[in-house]
Amino acid sequence: MANPYQYAETNQERFLDEYQHLLKIRTISTQPQHAGDVARAADWLKDMMLEIGMERAEVILMPAGRCPLVLGEWSGAGPDAPTVLIYCHYDVQPAAVADGWVTEPFEPTIVDGRLFCRGAVDSKLHVMANLKAVESWLAADAKPKVNIKIVLEGEEESGSENINAFIAAHPERLAADIAVISDGAILAPDQPSLTYGLRGICALELHVQSPVNDLHSGHWGGSVHNPIQALCEILAQLHDDNGTVAVPGFYDDVAAVTAKDRALLEQVEPFLQAEWDDVVSAPAVWGESEYILPERLGARPTLEINGIHGGYTGDGMKTVLPARAFAKITCRLAPRQDPERVVRCVAEHIKNIAPATVSVDVQTRGPGAEAVLLDVDSLAMRSAAAAYAHAWGVEPVFERTGGSVPIAFECMKVAKELVTMSYGLKSGRAHGPNENIYLQNFYNGVRAMIKFIEIVGESRG
Amino acid sequence: MANPYQYAETNQERFLDEYQHLLKIRTISTQPQHAGDVARAADWLKDMMLEIGMERAEVILMPAGRCPLVLGEWSGAGPDAPTVLIYCHYDVQPAAVADGWVTEPFEPTIVDGRLFCRGAVDSKLHVMANLKAVESWLAADAKPKVNIKIVLEGEEESGSENINAFIAAHPERLAADIAVISDGAILAPDQPSLTYGLRGICALELHVQSPVNDLHSGHWGGSVHNPIQALCEILAQLHDDNGTVAVPGFYDDVAAVTAKDRALLEQVEPFLQAEWDDVVSAPAVWGESEYILPERLGARPTLEINGIHGGYTGDGMKTVLPARAFAKITCRLAPRQDPERVVRCVAEHIKNIAPATVSVDVQTRGPGAEAVLLDVDSLAMRSAAAAYAHAWGVEPVFERTGGSVPIAFECMKVAKELVTMSYGLKSGRAHGPNENIYLQNFYNGVRAMIKFIEIVGESRG
Repeated sequence: MANPYQYAETNQERFLDEYQHLLKIRTISTQPQHAGDVARAADWLKDMMLEIGMERAEVILMPAGRCPLVLGEWSGAGPDAPTVLIYCHYDVQPAAVADGWVTEPFEPTIVDGRLFCRGAVDSKLHVMANLKAVESWLAADAKPKVNIKIVLEGEEESGSENINAFIAAHPERLAADIAVISDGAILAPDQPSLTYGLRGICALELHVQSPVNDLHSGHWGGSVHNPIQALCEILAQLHDDNGTVAVPGFYDDVAAVTAKDRALLEQVEPFLQAEWDDVVSAPAVWGESEYILPERLGARPTLEINGIHGGYTGDGMKTVLPARAFAKITCRLAPRQDPERVVRCVAEHIKNIAPATVSVDVQTRGPGAEAVLLDVDSLAMRSAAAAYAHAWGVEPVFERTGGSVPIAFECMKVAKELVTMSYGLKSGRAHGPNENIYLQNFYNGVRAMIKFIEIVGESRG
Repeated sequence: MANPYQYAETNQERFLDEYQHLLKIRTISTQPQHAGDVARAADWLKDMMLEIGMERAEVILMPAGRCPLVLGEWSGAGPDAPTVLIYCHYDVQPAAVADGWVTEPFEPTIVDGRLFCRGAVDSKLHVMANLKAVESWLAADAKPKVNIKIVLEGEEESGSENINAFIAAHPERLAADIAVISDGAILAPDQPSLTYGLRGICALELHVQSPVNDLHSGHWGGSVHNPIQALCEILAQLHDDNGTVAVPGFYDDVAAVTAKDRALLEQVEPFLQAEWDDVVSAPAVWGESEYILPERLGARPTLEINGIHGGYTGDGMKTVLPARAFAKITCRLAPRQDPERVVRCVAEHIKNIAPATVSVDVQTRGPGAEAVLLDVDSLAMRSAAAAYAHAWGVEPVFERTGGSVPIAFECMKVAKELVTMSYGLKSGRAHGPNENIYLQNFYNGVRAMIKFIEIVGESRG
């Protein structure tokens, strides 16, 4: 085989078969009854790593009841060559015909160039495209000029409880010059995109108590500050009319949206607006008017009420004046915001504005996570952009996504540079019924990773 | 027997025995497995009506599965004499030792002059005190100068679905000059009280929708008006800082609190404040500063949020930006407020202030009920006041209670005058564990009703 591109093209059909083989294994990490399936997939992936020529491959068992990591390594480029770490996850969300699947969810079905199966886009697409790219390199005449590590997580869909601990305990196992987080989706079939920012997160709960017990609203209504009302009065003061968070200090450390950000994100705007119209479809767009949609979603911090409850919410009516009410809140963080400091700001503000007629209790939930902001001019990012341009024939645009990917933050601890590479589409219905990919995205993914390895190797080797 | 007072005193011990007999019957109207107990109690009460000398007594069956009415009548005072209708209910709330009862809930237990049992105060106290007062009259030498009707409801604790329909279908069966609603509680052991006002009620639900489906708060947060937040912003605008309802037109028809009201209610204030400190015990009293506590609770309308829900409220966190959120609202109404008009005012205001970024839906719940305001100078009220003064040795004060008693409103349709007469205490833990009365309140109740019948008969006979 002359080169990896030719190898990939020649073996395209077999690659697709193997991808389908993995798709059939029900690697549902949240359902203990599928622990055997997950273990079988892990073994199959480890064996494949060895088959394609990686030097070491290992199934790393996790605490009882948790799904294993699969770790493979090829160091043939030598100690002076850079190392690329590729992260993907091989576990999937549950799926059942009753949820609205047109096909059997674990039976890969190809219709008009699209493949329908649970895990098709999230994220066995990435597992197999990357493995097959590495295989193409290891089978080629010229070996890669980078060392390669592949880590495949088995519990991304059920909390990723153990991978961070593994990284912390064994940083050398995943140490790399460049980490590639390969998950997620690009903007559109003919518009690849690269994520250069991920928001952080922090969480808190606000509890309001007024009377010591639930009261009869007839007997006592008019003399007691209803805790639901007080909670609403507090929550209503956390944003101004522009949708800006009205908590003093909240924006203190927020990295400004630069002219460069604006220029990059303006290219993303039409795609995001179309998706907003399709997926959100609220009566009107809301939020900070001085920022364009991709900035509101990716570059600006938010304060979101995820849940609220108080009093009686069943059928009919119950004339209760409840003792307490609560809300669950998360803030999405912009780069440079410290999760702990943000929680403290919000908590202090709530205590300052809370009326004396009720008592409030603000509780932190979890450690939170910092935002990730990547340099679009880094070697990793430039290499990924060139790889997409090669595979898709279209230059990628750069986006910032609003979600938080804790593994990205963890990988930054063991890798000098980070890049995220996605091959699926947002319309691929990850987590939903009839999850699917265009087969072309699988082939493009293989080609993109081959090219990425080539470019990094040439730049640094 | 010379007179009814002597008869009641002589038979005090037997009265107590019979009261305890009724207490032992588990007349829990909300629990179908106790239908037999309810039927047994209804028969026992009907038999007792006949035994004590009423001319007619009847168990009136209700639609399948619902608890019967018991109706008794004595017309011995002749067609020209006034008729007094006494309403009580003989069904009770559920009770179990596990709820915190120190004694067996359906085993009457007397300790230090107090009787503990489910139904002791709510409302078999009233059923038996009134029946025994009538017995005392019918057994005396001089017969009463009023005709007497007694109606005992069996489903007050489970919604009173059928009694209103019965009254509407057979108004003549309950027609009276004076209706006595005998239920509830007086202010304190040595301070009898008479209720001259009851608030009305109307109910609605407010639903707010923003995106068409629940969204990932990371992916979309910052671009969508969170429906929980929008709901809070709307609800926070329904009161001003003084606790006054900030809905245009809400107070338009409200009967003013007069100087006479203030004079009456000032006497109630210390009792209510003590009860507030004990039962409510919120960080501070809240509400319209220009009104004293008994006015806020009894004479002023309210807008109360009884329940709120939106998003995820289970353990842990879920980063959802929910599609919808809702709140349940009831308004307690002052005299002259029309329930339908108030719902309309609130709904219109909500639609006016709702932001264009969400859609709102306001739904009426139930027909509501108008407030009741009684004339403290009516014959019925003056007679009741004199009866309390006789039985307790203390002049009663006049209060207005915040709850709504639909049967009071219904009885006003078939009776020329209305009065409410209560013998229990607010501290008697109606609906709670260890429900109890002071035995003295039972004896005082018997005496008060004997006196009431005497005074009404003398005034009108």
